[in-house]
Amino acid sequence: MTATAPHQPDVAAALAAVRRVRPLVHCITNDVVMNSTANALLALGASPVMAHAPEEAAGIAAGAAALVVNLGTPTRWRAEAMRLATAAARAGGIPWVMDPVGVGSSPWRHDLARELAGARPTVIRGNAREILSLAWGETDGAGVDSEAGVSEAAREAARALAQEQGCVVAVTGFVDFVSDGERELHVHNGHPLMARVTGTGCMLGAVLAACLGAGAPPFDAAVAALVLFGLAGERAGAGDVGPGTFQVRLFDALAALGPDDLARDARIAP
Amino acid sequence: MTATAPHQPDVAAALAAVRRVRPLVHCITNDVVMNSTANALLALGASPVMAHAPEEAAGIAAGAAALVVNLGTPTRWRAEAMRLATAAARAGGIPWVMDPVGVGSSPWRHDLARELAGARPTVIRGNAREILSLAWGETDGAGVDSEAGVSEAAREAARALAQEQGCVVAVTGFVDFVSDGERELHVHNGHPLMARVTGTGCMLGAVLAACLGAGAPPFDAAVAALVLFGLAGERAGAGDVGPGTFQVRLFDALAALGPDDLARDARIAP
Amino acid sequence: MTATAPHQPDVAAALAAVRRVRPLVHCITNDVVMNSTANALLALGASPVMAHAPEEAAGIAAGAAALVVNLGTPTRWRAEAMRLATAAARAGGIPWVMDPVGVGSSPWRHDLARELAGARPTVIRGNAREILSLAWGETDGAGVDSEAGVSEAAREAARALAQEQGCVVAVTGFVDFVSDGERELHVHNGHPLMARVTGTGCMLGAVLAACLGAGAPPFDAAVAALVLFGLAGERAGAGDVGPGTFQVRLFDALAALGPDDLARDARIAP
Repeated sequence: MTATAPHQPDVAAALAAVRRVRPLVHCITNDVVMNSTANALLALGASPVMAHAPEEAAGIAAGAAALVVNLGTPTRWRAEAMRLATAAARAGGIPWVMDPVGVGSSPWRHDLARELAGARPTVIRGNAREILSLAWGETDGAGVDSEAGVSEAAREAARALAQEQGCVVAVTGFVDFVSDGERELHVHNGHPLMARVTGTGCMLGAVLAACLGAGAPPFDAAVAALVLFGLAGERAGAGDVGPGTFQVRLFDALAALGPDDLARDARIAP
Repeated sequence: MTATAPHQPDVAAALAAVRRVRPLVHCITNDVVMNSTANALLALGASPVMAHAPEEAAGIAAGAAALVVNLGTPTRWRAEAMRLATAAARAGGIPWVMDPVGVGSSPWRHDLARELAGARPTVIRGNAREILSLAWGETDGAGVDSEAGVSEAAREAARALAQEQGCVVAVTGFVDFVSDGERELHVHNGHPLMARVTGTGCMLGAVLAACLGAGAPPFDAAVAALVLFGLAGERAGAGDVGPGTFQVRLFDALAALGPDDLARDARIAP
Repeated sequence: MTATAPHQPDVAAALAAVRRVRPLVHCITNDVVMNSTANALLALGASPVMAHAPEEAAGIAAGAAALVVNLGTPTRWRAEAMRLATAAARAGGIPWVMDPVGVGSSPWRHDLARELAGARPTVIRGNAREILSLAWGETDGAGVDSEAGVSEAAREAARALAQEQGCVVAVTGFVDFVSDGERELHVHNGHPLMARVTGTGCMLGAVLAACLGAGAPPFDAAVAALVLFGLAGERAGAGDVGPGTFQVRLFDALAALGPDDLARDARIAP
């Protein structure tokens, strides 16, 4: 039995829906995290399909319950697959998550991210630096890690991006922030070791797509995914563990967490 | 000391041969499982070489003891490498495994799979849905997971495919089925968590190639690989484990299993 | 407190510098090890950026503290990215590591390796077979594993290559060897299970780049990385572990090892 406060997204219901629906999530993601992303979805109870050839991206997206497009390690052909898959998702009314990994890494990647952001993503998920870069066009030559919390600047960027694109924006970090341009929430679940394992943000983007694919409304799906993944991190990081053990336990936790755990342990704040 | 029944493949001998020969297995496989496939082969005692550039695929295949070609995450260039490598394997009498991952995902992938199936694979390994799609041309838009057991329809498709291509066909699932068009066996080893970790089927295809590369006859190699991998799954899944821990223990089990374990614990049935 | 002998590289200082500087390490590496390499750098305390599109390779390399270029699973476009990134590194005075994985696998890969070796790498790291192939042009059709110790032939090849290219050469195996053409040292840290997990050499190359990126002189960085990674292997392999557990513990050890551990447990010999 879940006990969600009236005005909060029903995060327990979102997880229950993923377990019931087992949504097929089409992932066009980066070379670094393809394995861990598929494993995160399987652990959660969703069904991943990883495919990024332009020859088949549109058809596979059209048959999926949700799509996630992740901009890490882009190539010109994967960019083409992203264009085709997002167009098919849009045409088919299929929800999709855009994960602008390293959007500030190069002008080329930034242009691609801006183009895709204009193709009506349902949710955009990035760390503060990525959301700032995507919203305001700032680029930098640095990597994808960020230890920044949610600055007011990042909140402003998220709100602006959400209003501009008519989507939900999730800013992830030690504290997460979700905005649809009007409603806003912070999620405090998580663990510092999540920044010591590659691809946790990317896995989260796929988990978010799974929640969308199971039918959760976009704002709720974003909050639910942040709570769920953050709680998995808290469980995985309990005790004195290193980053290798942490990653293994993260998959275990994604499989073990139930809707009641989310209802009880979600730390959501205005 | 092994105690294999007279008419059954000598699965213990196949593992012993892999350990003795340490066959070099050339893998042209998908982006999701490249790391776990190399690790499965290393854990087993084989020697992996992962290479998928058309510029070098033929030469590397020609120098390998066996080849595995896996159709997950195909690209046009990887398809070209597959054509060149399988031609080199055929010319050199090198056994090779075809793993038609997600063959029904798109017409393009289906055409590629049919083309490669015509290039004389030694063994074809797929789940029931993939074997049905490869044999009868049915396509679907769904992912690569299947919880179906071995239906009579899948058995029929496997027999037909084996006869058509003159090869062995292995259908994997909760129960596995092997046919060379005349002889048939079922393998009952395995664990449900194998469906909760990505790439277990792909790893199995590579393990099968290792058995071929060590000199096992195709039918025996297929049965041995199914028993070996299934037993590794049983060991990895013993107790109350999650999918992250399961995957780690799967590699441990592949390294720890010996020929006597296979002879004792194989569950092979007509 | 560290107690390094007068004429030995200060391996403790190199690790302390990585922890302090958190260098951004640009990795153009192979498809098999991209995830584990990023995780090794994160566990160590460095910041990885994995990117291999020609469209952005130069710019990202120019903004990094160090670059590692790894020749496993090459493609024509990744080769182009390597050319652009190494040119940018050279132009910007950014140290870079060349890891000629499987250089003898094909004439095409050998030519690429020779071309890149001429682009002024700071350190070249390979196993004995790779260094022999790179130095003397011998090619073979075999895989990338080698159980050979440091033969005098490999030492000769390393010295010659170091003098020819004006760089440091590290030959890794059960015993490691470092030469800058004049100075030479052997490193005895390590564990046999490192040969049963894919990508340990590749991770080492990235760790070496992290030491360079934190400011260690090339010879010292090579020795420090070999000691550091070898010690992590010793810790990970302690007790009766299989290769799956070993890999998990390797990341834990990379995070847990401190400068004092290196000063105390380094096994460096003339």
